[in-house]
Amino acid sequence: MTTGRIELPRLDDLHTHLRQEGMMQTVAPLTWSGGAGRVLVMPNTLPHIRTTREALDYREQLIAVEPRLRYLMTLYLTPDLHPDEVRRAADSDFVVGVKSYPRGVTTHSDAGVESYEPYDPVFEAMQDAGLVLEIHGELPSDPVNDICCLNAEARFLPMVERLHRDFPRLRIVLEHITTAEAVRFVRDAGETLAATITAHHLELCVDDWAGQNHHFCKPVAKYPHDREALRAIIDEGHARFFLGSDSAPHPRDVKEAAVGCAGVFTGAHLAVHLATTFERMGALRRLTDFATRFGREFYRLPPLDESIVVERGPTEVPAQYGEVVPFRAGTELPWRIVD
Amino acid sequence: MTTGRIELPRLDDLHTHLRQEGMMQTVAPLTWSGGAGRVLVMPNTLPHIRTTREALDYREQLIAVEPRLRYLMTLYLTPDLHPDEVRRAADSDFVVGVKSYPRGVTTHSDAGVESYEPYDPVFEAMQDAGLVLEIHGELPSDPVNDICCLNAEARFLPMVERLHRDFPRLRIVLEHITTAEAVRFVRDAGETLAATITAHHLELCVDDWAGQNHHFCKPVAKYPHDREALRAIIDEGHARFFLGSDSAPHPRDVKEAAVGCAGVFTGAHLAVHLATTFERMGALRRLTDFATRFGREFYRLPPLDESIVVERGPTEVPAQYGEVVPFRAGTELPWRIVD
Repeated sequence: MTTGRIELPRLDDLHTHLRQEGMMQTVAPLTWSGGAGRVLVMPNTLPHIRTTREALDYREQLIAVEPRLRYLMTLYLTPDLHPDEVRRAADSDFVVGVKSYPRGVTTHSDAGVESYEPYDPVFEAMQDAGLVLEIHGELPSDPVNDICCLNAEARFLPMVERLHRDFPRLRIVLEHITTAEAVRFVRDAGETLAATITAHHLELCVDDWAGQNHHFCKPVAKYPHDREALRAIIDEGHARFFLGSDSAPHPRDVKEAAVGCAGVFTGAHLAVHLATTFERMGALRRLTDFATRFGREFYRLPPLDESIVVERGPTEVPAQYGEVVPFRAGTELPWRIVD
Repeated sequence: MTTGRIELPRLDDLHTHLRQEGMMQTVAPLTWSGGAGRVLVMPNTLPHIRTTREALDYREQLIAVEPRLRYLMTLYLTPDLHPDEVRRAADSDFVVGVKSYPRGVTTHSDAGVESYEPYDPVFEAMQDAGLVLEIHGELPSDPVNDICCLNAEARFLPMVERLHRDFPRLRIVLEHITTAEAVRFVRDAGETLAATITAHHLELCVDDWAGQNHHFCKPVAKYPHDREALRAIIDEGHARFFLGSDSAPHPRDVKEAAVGCAGVFTGAHLAVHLATTFERMGALRRLTDFATRFGREFYRLPPLDESIVVERGPTEVPAQYGEVVPFRAGTELPWRIVD
């Protein structure tokens, strides 16, 4: 594992943003060359992906742009989502889940949910049909109740606890977790509750996005001890914590702005970022399980045939890909992909 | 106090950045028109202000640009500062203090201090000569010890406690405090320990600078409950908490950038920002003491003769002043200054 050469299946990235139109043309091929083989594509496009039919259309657009990637789709949870649509989605061979955004917390989340109880019939149908619920787990900011971007994730956990208790067969993924509280919560939960961890949250903490908008994302990176908790659960090799990059490209001019968009674009070098970070963590032995096995098993997906080799050697990250500034732009990373 | 018209002395702003050269030409007149009458000018110019002679030169430049403002000066604490220079400064009629920056924490703080013990002879001389110690109270970030911009102020307090205990006659100002911990600490300390509070820290919390570099400053704004603690101590009318705006202009292109500079430029409308915020806090009755009396008394300064009137009525904040984007740019504030 410290030989400086790792052969592993192409990555299962169970949370990514591939966008639309010109941005999609840029990002989808880079996602393949960055090492992913199969990706769960977020539905916060405009308009949002709300039906199996819309997911199919979007997926066909993606296949036309980058046919080598395998695309898993998820529907945007809104009050319009009917249990019948849930069953229709589950009968497709490409919709694997339903994604819940809290209202107003991140990009295009104006249609997000405010309270989960009204959705219980949908969750019941999902549980029976075998769809996974993917949750962006943050409360909206509320200064009167001292809720801000720093504690929005920890304060959200009781809502997940209620769902997990009331729908014990429903597989739930708490996405892009950033806090020690969320690590403990998921670790101590039952087998149907898992979490994704991004590459950048293993690298960043609050100091890294203070004044640095290319590192600003939602949920924001938290304290050093939170980052340490994410690293520790990976080092442990816990099977319910796996890769979801939340790679989220935005044009440079809406990042380097008075009010910057949230998102870090790691997709173009995802395997290399992970190898770099896992080596620093002393956890290279966990890379393959974290990025190619645990997520696939939780989602009950077949293994991928295609492999990549990640080996020691420089990767020069360019300043931009099209309009997008990638994570670690302008630096040299110590690993590289060999196809 | 709720009549919509307040006559008060021009403000004593006991912490501001007036910069040099072209920026100084822009900022010093705006500081006057924003309502200040007397300002304590920070010494983190390039080169830093380290001697009484350098402070005199800088002050003469400022007088040439804006002769109406009264300038109080402070020396940058470095290992070169000798007790003889402290006595020389105290004998001048314009140097009132010595400013301590922790190394590397904010703009031009590369010469800041790492540990206070070596400076004890300087503090002894300051205590005897009657100079005030102004402290930027943050530890440098240190992930191994879980120190980041969110807890750097609270973790610094023991260093201030030691100074306050060992030099009980030394007047110390803990500047631009941002946390409930710092409020409690200063409130519970002796009469020689005070704190300044900025206008923007009464308005902002962490959500407001996440991705919004014009609201990014050091110390960063913290949780809503911290902001509430700052508001509460002002509402109480505590005499050891007073105005230091830390108004800190930077050119727009170094704010709206991949790595933005820290600083919020409130000086151009300082009295109006304060009236707006104090009204929202229900604390307009505290405005005059906070902004014109408590600080002056702690620094043992004579009252200012010049007055301003702040009255209800719109102030349009422009998008920019020269290269600088002011706080609340492009908005209308509900109070205005009448000279």
